[in-house]
Amino acid sequence: MNIDGKPYRTIWLNEDGWSVEIIDQTKLPFVFASVTLRTLEDAARAISTMQVRGAPLIGATAAYGVALALRDDASDEALDRACNILAATRPTAVNLSWALEEMQKAIRNQPHDKRVAAAYARASAICDEDVETCRKIGEHGLGLIQAHAEKKGGAPVNILTHCNAGWLATVDWGTALAPIYRAHDQGIKVHVWVDETRPRNQGASLTAFELGAHGVPHTVVADNTGGHLMQKKLVDLCIVGTDRVTANGDVANKIGTYLKALAARDNGVQFFVALPHSTIDWSLDDGSAIPIEERDPQEVTHITGKLPDGSVATVAITPDGSPAANYGFDVTPARLVTGFITERGVTPGDQEGLAVLYPECRQR
Amino acid sequence: MNIDGKPYRTIWLNEDGWSVEIIDQTKLPFVFASVTLRTLEDAARAISTMQVRGAPLIGATAAYGVALALRDDASDEALDRACNILAATRPTAVNLSWALEEMQKAIRNQPHDKRVAAAYARASAICDEDVETCRKIGEHGLGLIQAHAEKKGGAPVNILTHCNAGWLATVDWGTALAPIYRAHDQGIKVHVWVDETRPRNQGASLTAFELGAHGVPHTVVADNTGGHLMQKKLVDLCIVGTDRVTANGDVANKIGTYLKALAARDNGVQFFVALPHSTIDWSLDDGSAIPIEERDPQEVTHITGKLPDGSVATVAITPDGSPAANYGFDVTPARLVTGFITERGVTPGDQEGLAVLYPECRQR
Repeated sequence: MNIDGKPYRTIWLNEDGWSVEIIDQTKLPFVFASVTLRTLEDAARAISTMQVRGAPLIGATAAYGVALALRDDASDEALDRACNILAATRPTAVNLSWALEEMQKAIRNQPHDKRVAAAYARASAICDEDVETCRKIGEHGLGLIQAHAEKKGGAPVNILTHCNAGWLATVDWGTALAPIYRAHDQGIKVHVWVDETRPRNQGASLTAFELGAHGVPHTVVADNTGGHLMQKKLVDLCIVGTDRVTANGDVANKIGTYLKALAARDNGVQFFVALPHSTIDWSLDDGSAIPIEERDPQEVTHITGKLPDGSVATVAITPDGSPAANYGFDVTPARLVTGFITERGVTPGDQEGLAVLYPECRQR
Repeated sequence: MNIDGKPYRTIWLNEDGWSVEIIDQTKLPFVFASVTLRTLEDAARAISTMQVRGAPLIGATAAYGVALALRDDASDEALDRACNILAATRPTAVNLSWALEEMQKAIRNQPHDKRVAAAYARASAICDEDVETCRKIGEHGLGLIQAHAEKKGGAPVNILTHCNAGWLATVDWGTALAPIYRAHDQGIKVHVWVDETRPRNQGASLTAFELGAHGVPHTVVADNTGGHLMQKKLVDLCIVGTDRVTANGDVANKIGTYLKALAARDNGVQFFVALPHSTIDWSLDDGSAIPIEERDPQEVTHITGKLPDGSVATVAITPDGSPAANYGFDVTPARLVTGFITERGVTPGDQEGLAVLYPECRQR
């Protein structure tokens, strides 16, 4: 996508041919800056501190993390160590382990002197594939928005999204936002309700930033607001991303997604989940087994923003001594999901729907 | 309740016998300070800027606002004007119009030279009645917590609450928190999940503050978290306050309450609403007619907290140019309410339940 007219991906190889550049998402929306990853440790830190986040982008960054590790040591032991370190950075998004498996498949059988090249080639391909996958998600999701646009006869289609599943969460285009960009670019009137997504505010900081940069009409709301908006018929459909979908169609996504899915069901609003194949975990029967990340309570008790003088500061928002808990994700049961939007098409939000789209992966 | 061992109400008459003191809740949890109200305008401003908030306390403050107005001019016109100004400060809490009606009943038939004294007497009585009402709400709600405590055999009873319906929302004791204080004081182990309650964070700032000051174990969570907590069986019951309950049992309360009620229903968790009689609006059939306040979007785009040096600052948390919307309340349909906890007892959360407790008010 374009920032000030210049096309960007969220991760790219530098001109030196080996170091990796990422957009530092912890600095958005106030500062648009990139960071250079030169080591395995740089890549692991970028993921765990959420300089990069979003399931597909976590996978892409981990892939390059393996390549960076092998530059120092291309042994089996070094490969194992790199994969273990990267796998431990964040627990919920399955794209991370998917990408590490892809890297091992591409590297393990290579002679040591060809492993670095093989690693960079596969990491680069993972990124390119992600862009193409997200482009197709946009294409397939477009029809859903078009259908609402036709019903509304020119009035904007109101779409609610939670967290950030836009181009900042992927290598480009996004998952949940890809159909929205596509619709907007085709002249369909859309308006996005952006959940701020406490505690890390990926909606208020990242989704609002990228929609604004692309000129898509949007309104930031507190996470508490979606139910009221749906009661008042101000939401035509919901589209969210996901960090892991199990074989039965249960959806792990940013904490609070489940509450919006409940409200959608209660108000007859469609609730779609957009995802690439790499987010499906065929090894788990249902969402109860998905590990839910617990993060530092300081992400709840403190918040970072811009002071009137333009500098960025962190303020405490709870009383000293009040403890906080910080669960990163929740699981939305498949029964609340209208459908999945994937690179292969749109399918009902259940086990059969997934199995029809991905017959070769169908759970054994 | 006690702050540093000294008993406080949220509003009281100063020793001069006419000016009114309130705790400035916009400064909590970082500064505990009071403000003096000397005029009708002071009282109206205190309500609209949320120096005082919480349905019962809004009513009490409006009552004293009428008394302050009559000191200057005790005519019918001045009384009408005061009531009109105060009624327009905030639209959703019905205790405001209830208190203004109570004041008019007490004043209108008095000769002009007795109106000021009558106004102060009625305002003071409204405050005392509120304290007694809330004490009884605590008494009646205690049994609900006790029942869970017995089932849990000594493990803490986990109660989720949204916004602040504690002593800071009333003159003393609170509504939703009154049973919790009562249980805690009796040695029943309780633990409160405190929704931070964006955008104004009454949970993170006020509920956490008052529970902490009283020594009640609690944990602050992002508003997004309650559904996950209920799925994981970490919530035994929910208790919230309300700004207006209609004759059929629909509940207007702080935005986001509806989402928690949906999650409670989906997970078989009891969802109770605590309220005094003055919060029931017998004139409305159902919640669809309740006016929902829309406040300044800046409450969403900016947040106030404490800098590392201890000073208080406001930071922007959205990109420049991203619009925001700020709906203050939502309506939880009666079908999602397990029961009401009132000063007369606990009753099922529906039309019949309310009518049984308040036969004299039953809608005509």
